[in-house]
Amino acid sequence: MRFCQIGVGRIGSLHAAHIADHPDCDLAYVIDRNDELAQAIAAKLGAQTAPIDAVLGDPGIDAVVIASSSASHDELIEAAARAGKAIFCEQPAGLSSKRTEAVLAVVSECGVPFFAALHRRFDPQIAAFKRRLDKGEIGKVEQLLITSREPMLPPIDYLRTSGGLFRDMMLHDFDLARWLLGEGPTEVYTAASVLVDPTLVSLGDVDTAIVTLKTRSGKLVQVNNSRRAVYGFDQRLEAFGSGGMLRMGNRVHDAVELSNAHGTSLSTPMRDMTARYREAFRLEFDAFVEALKTGKPPQPGPADARAAIQIADAATESMETGKPVAL
Amino acid sequence: MRFCQIGVGRIGSLHAAHIADHPDCDLAYVIDRNDELAQAIAAKLGAQTAPIDAVLGDPGIDAVVIASSSASHDELIEAAARAGKAIFCEQPAGLSSKRTEAVLAVVSECGVPFFAALHRRFDPQIAAFKRRLDKGEIGKVEQLLITSREPMLPPIDYLRTSGGLFRDMMLHDFDLARWLLGEGPTEVYTAASVLVDPTLVSLGDVDTAIVTLKTRSGKLVQVNNSRRAVYGFDQRLEAFGSGGMLRMGNRVHDAVELSNAHGTSLSTPMRDMTARYREAFRLEFDAFVEALKTGKPPQPGPADARAAIQIADAATESMETGKPVAL
Amino acid sequence: MRFCQIGVGRIGSLHAAHIADHPDCDLAYVIDRNDELAQAIAAKLGAQTAPIDAVLGDPGIDAVVIASSSASHDELIEAAARAGKAIFCEQPAGLSSKRTEAVLAVVSECGVPFFAALHRRFDPQIAAFKRRLDKGEIGKVEQLLITSREPMLPPIDYLRTSGGLFRDMMLHDFDLARWLLGEGPTEVYTAASVLVDPTLVSLGDVDTAIVTLKTRSGKLVQVNNSRRAVYGFDQRLEAFGSGGMLRMGNRVHDAVELSNAHGTSLSTPMRDMTARYREAFRLEFDAFVEALKTGKPPQPGPADARAAIQIADAATESMETGKPVAL
Amino acid sequence: MRFCQIGVGRIGSLHAAHIADHPDCDLAYVIDRNDELAQAIAAKLGAQTAPIDAVLGDPGIDAVVIASSSASHDELIEAAARAGKAIFCEQPAGLSSKRTEAVLAVVSECGVPFFAALHRRFDPQIAAFKRRLDKGEIGKVEQLLITSREPMLPPIDYLRTSGGLFRDMMLHDFDLARWLLGEGPTEVYTAASVLVDPTLVSLGDVDTAIVTLKTRSGKLVQVNNSRRAVYGFDQRLEAFGSGGMLRMGNRVHDAVELSNAHGTSLSTPMRDMTARYREAFRLEFDAFVEALKTGKPPQPGPADARAAIQIADAATESMETGKPVAL
Repeated sequence: MRFCQIGVGRIGSLHAAHIADHPDCDLAYVIDRNDELAQAIAAKLGAQTAPIDAVLGDPGIDAVVIASSSASHDELIEAAARAGKAIFCEQPAGLSSKRTEAVLAVVSECGVPFFAALHRRFDPQIAAFKRRLDKGEIGKVEQLLITSREPMLPPIDYLRTSGGLFRDMMLHDFDLARWLLGEGPTEVYTAASVLVDPTLVSLGDVDTAIVTLKTRSGKLVQVNNSRRAVYGFDQRLEAFGSGGMLRMGNRVHDAVELSNAHGTSLSTPMRDMTARYREAFRLEFDAFVEALKTGKPPQPGPADARAAIQIADAATESMETGKPVAL
Repeated sequence: MRFCQIGVGRIGSLHAAHIADHPDCDLAYVIDRNDELAQAIAAKLGAQTAPIDAVLGDPGIDAVVIASSSASHDELIEAAARAGKAIFCEQPAGLSSKRTEAVLAVVSECGVPFFAALHRRFDPQIAAFKRRLDKGEIGKVEQLLITSREPMLPPIDYLRTSGGLFRDMMLHDFDLARWLLGEGPTEVYTAASVLVDPTLVSLGDVDTAIVTLKTRSGKLVQVNNSRRAVYGFDQRLEAFGSGGMLRMGNRVHDAVELSNAHGTSLSTPMRDMTARYREAFRLEFDAFVEALKTGKPPQPGPADARAAIQIADAATESMETGKPVAL
Repeated sequence: MRFCQIGVGRIGSLHAAHIADHPDCDLAYVIDRNDELAQAIAAKLGAQTAPIDAVLGDPGIDAVVIASSSASHDELIEAAARAGKAIFCEQPAGLSSKRTEAVLAVVSECGVPFFAALHRRFDPQIAAFKRRLDKGEIGKVEQLLITSREPMLPPIDYLRTSGGLFRDMMLHDFDLARWLLGEGPTEVYTAASVLVDPTLVSLGDVDTAIVTLKTRSGKLVQVNNSRRAVYGFDQRLEAFGSGGMLRMGNRVHDAVELSNAHGTSLSTPMRDMTARYREAFRLEFDAFVEALKTGKPPQPGPADARAAIQIADAATESMETGKPVAL
Repeated sequence: MRFCQIGVGRIGSLHAAHIADHPDCDLAYVIDRNDELAQAIAAKLGAQTAPIDAVLGDPGIDAVVIASSSASHDELIEAAARAGKAIFCEQPAGLSSKRTEAVLAVVSECGVPFFAALHRRFDPQIAAFKRRLDKGEIGKVEQLLITSREPMLPPIDYLRTSGGLFRDMMLHDFDLARWLLGEGPTEVYTAASVLVDPTLVSLGDVDTAIVTLKTRSGKLVQVNNSRRAVYGFDQRLEAFGSGGMLRMGNRVHDAVELSNAHGTSLSTPMRDMTARYREAFRLEFDAFVEALKTGKPPQPGPADARAAIQIADAATESMETGKPVAL
């Protein structure tokens, strides 16, 4: 299978390397709005650069991996779908629920495979967490707490076109909640603040938020996000049920601990998101390739992309109106 | 100082023992609606039983400790205040914000010392947590997560007159939030369910809840409660700020751990609330006595009792209306 | 039962308070070579001071608790035994195996109850460890590692008459090893150094040591001691068997942890030995009283006192000769 | 650089893959006494098989990686050295100190680079431990405790030619002790037993051992080994010094923990040695290649190989004689 990698920033360059390494894949093209970067990575991985139209017009190309800026996803998906290419796309697919619906309608019409790159589902630790919930280790699940905090605020330029905290960052937590519980929310309430950088106020964005979800069966979910966590990348889970509690802690640098007169000091959580989710990024790509090979619809797919942005839109609306939003 | 202990259930009997042990105090009377129990404890601790009127009419009695059922607090406080006795009272003082206001107005008119028995503030571990926040160990606080889950649902008869989850149980978490942040909420939102025992539906009560608070300065608080936690009494804190994160775990039975082919297994959290907060119950009583000796107003006092029930009422209202409530 | 407390230093004053508090005991006398201290504590606890001969000659005295300096234990035991008093004695009973044999022979002749105050056996955490070993939770035990380190070197004056590291400090670890394994060693080897304070060289003592024990059935034990541990009082156990591993960690101040850019920092172990073993000291005294009341021989008794000093003597000999010593 | 991989068992096949992956290396030959296995791996990695003489006679071969059975190392090293090949060799180099001396003398005469594959030094966690000791984080080091236990007894056939517990397994712990302390032992004492499999008695081998080392400056080291650890591969370190304690725990499968009525259960340590030390095996190979490229003597080298087997021989002798052995 021949691939084109679109966008080779932090995550896109990882995908490019996975394509190049995969025994069943051939990385033919690399595209980025920074052409120099695209050429450098193409050269390193034995690929070439080309205009997007040329790539999509090349009948030898089977699939595209989209990891460009979030605001560009929608048009790239539509163009790729119309060109009959299989699509692997970072989330969200569109910057609103409405736009995402339109984009996925095109995907559906064109009948191309579509993979929603919700990588955390593939993290071995999170996957183990899911398996243990499904096996009933804590009985019937009643509450889920998701902590998700990034070490540093991204550049303001990035944030300007990101869709805001709930679509750019918490969307992944919303997907996890849905997937772990096997049930989506019917009610979404947001409490949010600008506590890290006042510049966000002028963007209509926030940097600190707690969102509560309630499902039809009454399960309660709390998600907290922050754009600042000086101690590292903080992504933890806690599920609570009729039979007990299941928790997932952070991945830390090492198991070395120092005890002195000031206390006992452990390693910090890993700071770098791509290092933390290294296996997840590889495993999700493997899953996409496997789906293409077997002809099964990739999982997670359009329904998951749609559900995640719907919750993110509801959380944004709740922030703006100060009221809970029904789904 | 001569004391009367009113109510000698689980917590009241602890207080009675503390009075009897304290070098500056004399336990003169023990009262309980279960007269046999009152007599047994009175006999054991060298006190006697008497009707409440006789006790309040005894000019030799300086103070009363009220630990009877929540529904009886209001009238007992009023009667004690009018009899000029110093008052130590389990919370809430009244089963609604309005009733509490009326009761505290009587306390204020009568000019008697009033101690709001919010014992967790006196727990050495929680007190250390507060000191470290106040020292700025995590910079400016931005988020606070409070987990508070009881091992088992109390008897339905108890719940019938308890005032409901938010006044009976989460009220203590609300007080902690206010005290730890040094700031009360201006907005309260509740998501709640009956997942443990469907009987609660007919009482208009819930057993599982997540409440979000937002303060004037934008700090966000999440409190989760459950009336069931098979693994023990689960009371944890997590504060998150510009300079780091401070967490408080559960107190566990011991530090013995077993590793075998199934994993590594640690001790459970302590199950018994009075054992978990043993020092706190003693220290709060000592603080009350110290305030009486020095003539300073007891802390926490009427303002704290009032604030806690206000938040609990708001959380109850939010549950009933499905909307956030402003304070 | 009427008691005399002999020696009211750090541990003796604890025992005095336990006697005074115990419903079945009466603290009649307090003796200490510091007469002022003895009088102060006697006054506080409602007892009196008297010369030792007067105390032992008082037929109303049932028992003595000996917690004076180690070098004084032997003669006090003999005198108390000849006066027909029940004896509770800090360990060692004599500063050598030979002297201990002689002392215990007197105890035996006089037929008085003798309790070897090896307090750690009564620590709830260590007792749980023992119960779990005995229940077979790790199968057949193969190795036992005992870590035992004190925060600070005791005063040199104390060390001068303490009997040396192996009799003063590691003796308690040796008793634990014997008790936990249900089997004593047949071979003892010591590697030791003076690394904390060179003054010890002139006393023929050491401050840092690792001792290996081997039992008849081939179980292996390692004990490490240090007279310096800046991070607190460090007493941990690790047993390893055919079915797993059982570990016991330190008791720490609290469960509060701080995460910042430098790592995650936990509470230190408790520093104070009497605080760490508070329950153990009370429970061992209760056990002594219970034995006196029921007429059963106190446990641990003479055989345990004898065995512990024998191993300590062997460890000392091994240090001096550089060779393993057979028992 | 062109390589030959000798021995493609569990560890050798890892090395073969590293050679094949390394941008500066070419895997030309694969040799194994199981020729079918050699051919399979050669085919997979684009290499070929050949008799050892042909390989050593091929002037295009720069280096050999020896990971065959321990008993075959010595002759292979001598032959490779005489053929002028650079040598990377699993440890020990010879099954006795004397044989190792002879082998290393040939290496020295021939002037070929020699890398002693003591992989644990390259483990990122152990390397961090070493860096922190060297930075003085615990002041002057006084004691070092090394725990090293394997999940299962290797096959008896393997053990027959392994050189025994101290040369096959504890040798790596001895190297760590020397490297971490920057000082070798002057005294070695062994206490050992056969507790896992009585068959070992007839081999003159043991399965359970505690060895004590003492260095010239008085530092004390304890190493414990077992050939059985049902809970996983257990390799931990604890260093203790004038300024504190540094500990290194096991690497565990994940950070998921379950709390239920039976306790809180954590993940076991990883069971598989090659998975546990995955990065270490790759990094040690990188270090070997880097040394060849820069012309610097590989580290660890002959002196480390010599020291490790000397301590292992002394530990074996101490086990046989029951006496400490001076070095």
